[in-house]
Amino acid sequence: MEDKCGVIGVKLNSGHAAFPTYYGLYALQHRGQESAGIVSFDGFKQHTKKGLGLIGEVFKEDDLKQLTGPSAIGHVRYPTYGSINKKTVHPFNVNTRQGFLALGHNGNITNAESLRKDLEKVGHVFTTDTDTEVLVHELARNLIKADLVQAIKQTIERTQGAYSTTLIYNGKVVGFRDPRGIRPLCIGELDDGYMVASESVALDVVGGKFLRDVKPGELVILEETGLESRRITEKTPAHCFFEYIYFARPDSNIEGRSVYKVRRKLGELLYDNHGVATDLVSPVPDSGRAFAAGYAEAGNIEYIESMMKNRYVGRTFIMPSQETRERAVRLKLNPIEPNIKGKKIMIIDDSIVRGTTSKQLIDSLRDNGAEEVHVRIGAPPITSPCNLGVNMASEEELMASKKSVSEIKNAIGADSLEYLSLEEISEALDIPKNNLCTGCVTGNYPIK
Amino acid sequence: MEDKCGVIGVKLNSGHAAFPTYYGLYALQHRGQESAGIVSFDGFKQHTKKGLGLIGEVFKEDDLKQLTGPSAIGHVRYPTYGSINKKTVHPFNVNTRQGFLALGHNGNITNAESLRKDLEKVGHVFTTDTDTEVLVHELARNLIKADLVQAIKQTIERTQGAYSTTLIYNGKVVGFRDPRGIRPLCIGELDDGYMVASESVALDVVGGKFLRDVKPGELVILEETGLESRRITEKTPAHCFFEYIYFARPDSNIEGRSVYKVRRKLGELLYDNHGVATDLVSPVPDSGRAFAAGYAEAGNIEYIESMMKNRYVGRTFIMPSQETRERAVRLKLNPIEPNIKGKKIMIIDDSIVRGTTSKQLIDSLRDNGAEEVHVRIGAPPITSPCNLGVNMASEEELMASKKSVSEIKNAIGADSLEYLSLEEISEALDIPKNNLCTGCVTGNYPIK
Amino acid sequence: MEDKCGVIGVKLNSGHAAFPTYYGLYALQHRGQESAGIVSFDGFKQHTKKGLGLIGEVFKEDDLKQLTGPSAIGHVRYPTYGSINKKTVHPFNVNTRQGFLALGHNGNITNAESLRKDLEKVGHVFTTDTDTEVLVHELARNLIKADLVQAIKQTIERTQGAYSTTLIYNGKVVGFRDPRGIRPLCIGELDDGYMVASESVALDVVGGKFLRDVKPGELVILEETGLESRRITEKTPAHCFFEYIYFARPDSNIEGRSVYKVRRKLGELLYDNHGVATDLVSPVPDSGRAFAAGYAEAGNIEYIESMMKNRYVGRTFIMPSQETRERAVRLKLNPIEPNIKGKKIMIIDDSIVRGTTSKQLIDSLRDNGAEEVHVRIGAPPITSPCNLGVNMASEEELMASKKSVSEIKNAIGADSLEYLSLEEISEALDIPKNNLCTGCVTGNYPIK
Amino acid sequence: MEDKCGVIGVKLNSGHAAFPTYYGLYALQHRGQESAGIVSFDGFKQHTKKGLGLIGEVFKEDDLKQLTGPSAIGHVRYPTYGSINKKTVHPFNVNTRQGFLALGHNGNITNAESLRKDLEKVGHVFTTDTDTEVLVHELARNLIKADLVQAIKQTIERTQGAYSTTLIYNGKVVGFRDPRGIRPLCIGELDDGYMVASESVALDVVGGKFLRDVKPGELVILEETGLESRRITEKTPAHCFFEYIYFARPDSNIEGRSVYKVRRKLGELLYDNHGVATDLVSPVPDSGRAFAAGYAEAGNIEYIESMMKNRYVGRTFIMPSQETRERAVRLKLNPIEPNIKGKKIMIIDDSIVRGTTSKQLIDSLRDNGAEEVHVRIGAPPITSPCNLGVNMASEEELMASKKSVSEIKNAIGADSLEYLSLEEISEALDIPKNNLCTGCVTGNYPIK
Repeated sequence: MEDKCGVIGVKLNSGHAAFPTYYGLYALQHRGQESAGIVSFDGFKQHTKKGLGLIGEVFKEDDLKQLTGPSAIGHVRYPTYGSINKKTVHPFNVNTRQGFLALGHNGNITNAESLRKDLEKVGHVFTTDTDTEVLVHELARNLIKADLVQAIKQTIERTQGAYSTTLIYNGKVVGFRDPRGIRPLCIGELDDGYMVASESVALDVVGGKFLRDVKPGELVILEETGLESRRITEKTPAHCFFEYIYFARPDSNIEGRSVYKVRRKLGELLYDNHGVATDLVSPVPDSGRAFAAGYAEAGNIEYIESMMKNRYVGRTFIMPSQETRERAVRLKLNPIEPNIKGKKIMIIDDSIVRGTTSKQLIDSLRDNGAEEVHVRIGAPPITSPCNLGVNMASEEELMASKKSVSEIKNAIGADSLEYLSLEEISEALDIPKNNLCTGCVTGNYPIK
Repeated sequence: MEDKCGVIGVKLNSGHAAFPTYYGLYALQHRGQESAGIVSFDGFKQHTKKGLGLIGEVFKEDDLKQLTGPSAIGHVRYPTYGSINKKTVHPFNVNTRQGFLALGHNGNITNAESLRKDLEKVGHVFTTDTDTEVLVHELARNLIKADLVQAIKQTIERTQGAYSTTLIYNGKVVGFRDPRGIRPLCIGELDDGYMVASESVALDVVGGKFLRDVKPGELVILEETGLESRRITEKTPAHCFFEYIYFARPDSNIEGRSVYKVRRKLGELLYDNHGVATDLVSPVPDSGRAFAAGYAEAGNIEYIESMMKNRYVGRTFIMPSQETRERAVRLKLNPIEPNIKGKKIMIIDDSIVRGTTSKQLIDSLRDNGAEEVHVRIGAPPITSPCNLGVNMASEEELMASKKSVSEIKNAIGADSLEYLSLEEISEALDIPKNNLCTGCVTGNYPIK
Repeated sequence: MEDKCGVIGVKLNSGHAAFPTYYGLYALQHRGQESAGIVSFDGFKQHTKKGLGLIGEVFKEDDLKQLTGPSAIGHVRYPTYGSINKKTVHPFNVNTRQGFLALGHNGNITNAESLRKDLEKVGHVFTTDTDTEVLVHELARNLIKADLVQAIKQTIERTQGAYSTTLIYNGKVVGFRDPRGIRPLCIGELDDGYMVASESVALDVVGGKFLRDVKPGELVILEETGLESRRITEKTPAHCFFEYIYFARPDSNIEGRSVYKVRRKLGELLYDNHGVATDLVSPVPDSGRAFAAGYAEAGNIEYIESMMKNRYVGRTFIMPSQETRERAVRLKLNPIEPNIKGKKIMIIDDSIVRGTTSKQLIDSLRDNGAEEVHVRIGAPPITSPCNLGVNMASEEELMASKKSVSEIKNAIGADSLEYLSLEEISEALDIPKNNLCTGCVTGNYPIK
Repeated sequence: MEDKCGVIGVKLNSGHAAFPTYYGLYALQHRGQESAGIVSFDGFKQHTKKGLGLIGEVFKEDDLKQLTGPSAIGHVRYPTYGSINKKTVHPFNVNTRQGFLALGHNGNITNAESLRKDLEKVGHVFTTDTDTEVLVHELARNLIKADLVQAIKQTIERTQGAYSTTLIYNGKVVGFRDPRGIRPLCIGELDDGYMVASESVALDVVGGKFLRDVKPGELVILEETGLESRRITEKTPAHCFFEYIYFARPDSNIEGRSVYKVRRKLGELLYDNHGVATDLVSPVPDSGRAFAAGYAEAGNIEYIESMMKNRYVGRTFIMPSQETRERAVRLKLNPIEPNIKGKKIMIIDDSIVRGTTSKQLIDSLRDNGAEEVHVRIGAPPITSPCNLGVNMASEEELMASKKSVSEIKNAIGADSLEYLSLEEISEALDIPKNNLCTGCVTGNYPIK
């Protein structure tokens, strides 16, 4: 389960906007590890550096130095298996009649195909199959007869889906968010300018001050003299609640809520409403930690790590066909036998997607002598794939799309299994259910 | 002095058109060493492989295997110092409303800037600053309302400059040439299909049979069943005569003339009209060889190589600042002292551009004991830069733009120096002067 | 503070020993990230693959397939800044009169310089400045007149320092440990053979069964039919206690002790003997976690993560000179403000080396509103550099070499600071002090 | 057919010896394209840069700057298919008891195996399978008890084969040549020091003055104050005559003879003793040119190039299995049809090795309409492989090892074929036959 992207926009009064953009991208690297890019504008010319790989692989010191100018946007992109190549690295930049335009977004445009067809009818040609290129062309088309604010307004009116976007247009830096605010985007003040970013941690690392989230359907222009804002449309919000549960960093702040505190609160609810007596509670590292600490605190149960994560097992790992899957799991998550043997264990995780890892993990705990293994999940069962910016799994692959909770419990071999309900999520977040995007757990998407 | 590009188009009845395209590109590598690309079409999908570097660096065996289908075009590009990057590698390919389109050309579109502005006015955006992207967009625009032949016709009518082009459009392979036929393009028959290529040597290496040159302003569609041709426009031809003198390979055949024979004939004219008594005649390797052999034959003068070319001294060669320029010349062209000492030498070259190399070469020959050094050039003095597809030098850098022949002789330190006249060129080629592009030696360009 | 290396040796009855070696190395990657290598023997020929970088970068699937044979050794090496290059990647392999010999070790040979001089006197020449090459030559020299066991015996008698070693010699796989057992080395049984490895986690990931540690001064030959062991010498052991505190993985087992449990016990002692009243206890991630959980449990104090580690900030991170150091710390460790503000915080770490990070961390916590910041360290102050296989810092750089605990507390800005004593370490480990190497905290080294 | 290596040694009074070494290597690149290396000594430390590939690929500007000091040696190595890897790149450098030693040679040590065994008996171990490592160890061993001159003397006395060597030992630069002088080595004076090099062209490119060849069995130490020379042994010389015919550059001078002039003279002998009436004479480019020019001059026959060499077809060229070999030949050597059609042609080449290329070439000429194709070879038939430093072919692969001249003529499809005799070679060179190594054409090797 991977989030699609992270975006940044920076406008300084003077100096080199690429540097805060670069540090900000480091703080958003968890949102996309496939590729990274920065575009800056020096008042006269646009500079671009993009590449496949992690930020540390893409940018060398010389690259940063050549990204001159007080305006910049940045982008990190997630690993997918379709069309990974240099051409699809963002931001996507083009020359238009009126000047330089570059743009990156986080999300997924659901009517990209029909927008593209409309544009092709009037002669547009496309060099990639990305929705971002469609968004750029649509905006460029609207810019022929309208100013930037009007053109973005027209673009938002014609574009469906989730899109938290930053763009740079002749040096102007703009952030805008789709009318339902599905993906996050926030604004901060720097010593000498402003930043928009997918998560508040990007502000933290450059010493910025969090101001507020960009509102759904709002457009913010970062000016040297301050922020100019326009609320383009107002629809019922549909914030992705999995940002709180899994995608965002624990140290981020979204819509006024500490992600860490939300997770801890959900852990407390897991104990209060779904707890059983065990000798200890253990997180699935790293994502289960805040939940497990909350559970431990609420139940006054011993918190102990029962497995060790190997951070070096990545995509280049070679698994010969004859090896059992079980081995791969032990390479990634090795049980700490003395913490397990003869114990009743509660395992806390944020979600179950395909279920295979959960099964192997539980087998491995039992092999190491666990007496009982109970599982609690800090979210409802995922039954439907996301089409709004998350790379999940197909419907057939989602374990909960076909199995009841009791069947899942049996399939993964747990002694007991419980999930949080949507109501509990809504309670912990203090956001009404109908202001959340719940497509992946209900099948009811805010956008067709 | 570098030619801009080489192009190829192949249509087979069946099989893998990328293979003959690849071999053909090898035969055209001298026309462009910056980058190479092939696009093929398999009846359903377009496949592309492009990259910076020589053909041998860009294409691996797996790449060729994946370029499936009976239609393909290929391109090699010259080394320039402006915008070398992956995005500007040709062929340039896009998706249009009607399907896949990829295109590469050899030449220079002189009204690209104004065409681009027209396209931007109706919403087109551009990802590069190349004239090729403009050509693709212009053609795509015309394709909205017209069929392929009509759309190319409209494109040719709006496009000024030199452009020998191959394109692939939903599997159709097309070659066309600008109305004056400035850059070469020829047609050949393969065992199982057809090929268009910048030079006939590309046909030779795949066992093809040379049919004829594409006519100025002609469009040729390679069909499985044969060739379909349309003469779009007819203007006075303006063939680049430097193709015969320098750019094309000696083993190529252009407009019915053997390049080697033309050069040899020019060498004979150099002796007949400009000869002096010397002990021997020597070419500047490699380009002066055919001229020098003609001179030697006409004058019954001993042909002998008086300098050795080092083929390994390329762009990566490191020249510390304190080293004299003279050293670099000796690394590239080392005199063979026993062939020089005490001799009166006639040196034959195809052209003088900046004059610095000529001077150092003559100095070096004198240092090795040459008694006299005479120079004959197989072309008129170059006085104006080319704007139709050749990377020459700026006007200030062209030695002959400011100096008379006698001043050049003194500047390079020759005992005598003579050039061929345009009339002699016309005579050797048997082409009337007004059917040649003579911009670089007269300043009168066929296109403003 | 970096451990020098990890070693592995595998002998199977049949099959491909390189595969378990490869998986085992993944489990030991934390012991060395500079380079990795595997040498196998197929009964006739030795195969080698070594390279700079992480395991995933060094070994491709084809490499593993070509490392055929039932015998193999592997090695990972730490990042240093002296002589990193391809030549110094281990295992070090040579051809001797009697056959192929390859060897890797974990530790540091303190009399390498004098051994090298002796060997040079009789004509040996060296291609690197590593102690490993000296060890190989010394062993090869002894092999002229002795069998393998005798030659290793003679080598151990002449060699001083810490050296847990695996070697392959004409297909025989051997592990041996220096007479004091300074660095760890253990033995396990596989389905179809045996393994020696620096840590027991390497056994876990290949489904092996931990048998026992190799004894100090013991040599173990892995035979197809079982293990052959020789105790070469017996001296007072001097196990490195920092293996328990920092170097080894929490899920490893050393000398019969669970590393995780030791750390948790040390955390309990920190509370029992050094605790103060705070609102919460937080680890410095990742190494402080087990200590902090023990502290929390012993004192029934809330365990909460107060900072988030960014795993992507690595060696390629670019820090412009004008940026403050404080920024780099926030990129690596970002405070979670809602967990900090207005709180009295206890921070648990395993050690303080230079002290700069501690100071910046505490500053950063105070900036985020911490009311009090107390620090407890799970080890005694480090006053002297290690010369037995750990890359620490020079004596001047070690904060505790010149400052008292109270001075360190002031320098880093803590409200209180306490360390564990050597006695507490000894108690938690249940190992007498004089059976531990305590050089780095007392200056009394077991070897001159 | 490839020569094994090129060597250089430079000693300056002051400054950076790596620069003239680097330029000199460029002039010797034809002697080895697999790898290149330079070792310098700055009075205190040795610096090394070696790598696989051409000189331009191995050395970057920074590398050269770091190769400080007034002493340096350099090496280029040939492409082989056995053990190409980073470890076998020369010069080979080691640390000995007395200091730094690095060494490279051109040739082949025929008793390397037995020398290696002797050294292994006294404890030496080897990291490669090269004869160069054996030579280094042998010399290092002799250095234990002897000074440098004595140690080299002892080494030469024990070492059989061909070895033109340069070495650097604690900053002293030495060149020496095997007792029969099989491979070339010459001495030159620079503005500020001395150089030894495989060929005189290396002197030319740095403005050096050719002094003389190193004598067979002579050792030359380059001192700041001049040259110190010792004649170690005196045996009957056995110079490789193929250096004149093929390996050396035409602009080189060996043993007082211009290589170009020798080739031209051999071309004249080909006409005088083996000529027939043809319309023209053509070289196989590039190596046949000087021979063909001599033939043309002697016979007053028209010299004309009848085929064009494609310099871009290298090792990376992809040849699909279904393609005929004939195609590959046309890619490398394309006939110039108008020079061939209806003509009786004399083709001049320096040698025939396997004969396959000759056959395809002749076929291709006939396909292009040649009326007659005669072939003359500037050397005797090669009947035996070289074991003294040339990578030729196995005996079975050598066409002349099994076929008479008349059979070869038929096999390659020539109308006539004649070779030069050894007597003619001896005459042209003005060197007695018994002072030449004639192993490859007689099977009588100077060394067993």
